[in-house]
Amino acid sequence: MYQLLTKYLREKISLTNAQCELIFSLFQPRMVNRNEIFFNKGMICQHFYFVNKGCIRMFYIHSDGTEFTRYFAFEKNFGTALASFITQKPSLEYIQAIEKSEVLSILRNDFYQLLEIIPSLEKIYRHILENAHDINSQRIESLLGKNAKDRYLSLLQQNPEIFQRIPNKLVASYLGISPETLSRAKAQVQIY
Amino acid sequence: MYQLLTKYLREKISLTNAQCELIFSLFQPRMVNRNEIFFNKGMICQHFYFVNKGCIRMFYIHSDGTEFTRYFAFEKNFGTALASFITQKPSLEYIQAIEKSEVLSILRNDFYQLLEIIPSLEKIYRHILENAHDINSQRIESLLGKNAKDRYLSLLQQNPEIFQRIPNKLVASYLGISPETLSRAKAQVQIY
Repeated sequence: MYQLLTKYLREKISLTNAQCELIFSLFQPRMVNRNEIFFNKGMICQHFYFVNKGCIRMFYIHSDGTEFTRYFAFEKNFGTALASFITQKPSLEYIQAIEKSEVLSILRNDFYQLLEIIPSLEKIYRHILENAHDINSQRIESLLGKNAKDRYLSLLQQNPEIFQRIPNKLVASYLGISPETLSRAKAQVQIY
Repeated sequence: MYQLLTKYLREKISLTNAQCELIFSLFQPRMVNRNEIFFNKGMICQHFYFVNKGCIRMFYIHSDGTEFTRYFAFEKNFGTALASFITQKPSLEYIQAIEKSEVLSILRNDFYQLLEIIPSLEKIYRHILENAHDINSQRIESLLGKNAKDRYLSLLQQNPEIFQRIPNKLVASYLGISPETLSRAKAQVQIY
């Protein structure tokens, strides 16, 4: 159950077996079905999720009904409605499983307490936050300026796995463009 | 010189005098003039700045010439071109002093080494990153959906100091709207 989490943690920091046991005792497994939305906008986020199997996404729905995906978390990655998790304000994001998935969830209070008990875990959380910042900065820049083709090319370079595993419609929602525009961008790039 | 930094740090974590001395030895003061852009787009960010006096802002310039401010850092706050600082990729942001300012700057390598030597500093950096994430999430949500009046009201609630200290034109660049639209939003709100 905890092999992948162990691998993830031990690739980044040293942990004793006792520390690992403590960490595992605080993570509960949860199965989620394909397309299941297991965290809703308006809720206050109390969990951090480690994707043990499958893939989840964090996304917004605009007032006009279009979706905007902030982040895809594949196996061996953490993900949550991070802004609400941090601020304890109602979430603007939803969390959905893209595939049938297994997540290991830890309660927010337990998570922050773990950071106190095992300070080296701060480094892991630091990397998660730094990564989230990098992604969000790219999203802001993308929303502000880049055209569809450039957004497609950036993503292709940064995270090609997304194109292999995620349906076109959701990739478009990640790029903030329509599926038709994404198809045109792809075609345009192939011509070059 | 280091009173404000000491206050900032000691409000958040416990530090011995020896630890404080080590920290101070790595921060260099730098004076910047009003409106001076002291870090440019395209550069790779090697410093973290603590605002000792004045105010700095991190901002983008779009291809059409309009500006977009990501963050204002007033006295007793840290700020930098965070995405480039983290990833060591060329920055999309500029850093400018809004007022005549004094910043204390620390080299990126020294900063990360300090985190290794004084692990409790991780908590400070965690708060900086969590705050940056919160701000960026609000910016994304704002860019995606909110109208000018709602953006204005959100900011008024979250950070009224901005309206007291920052010129209207720059506040508008922070909200991603034109100065004229900001004036209309303000007028609209006063009517209610």
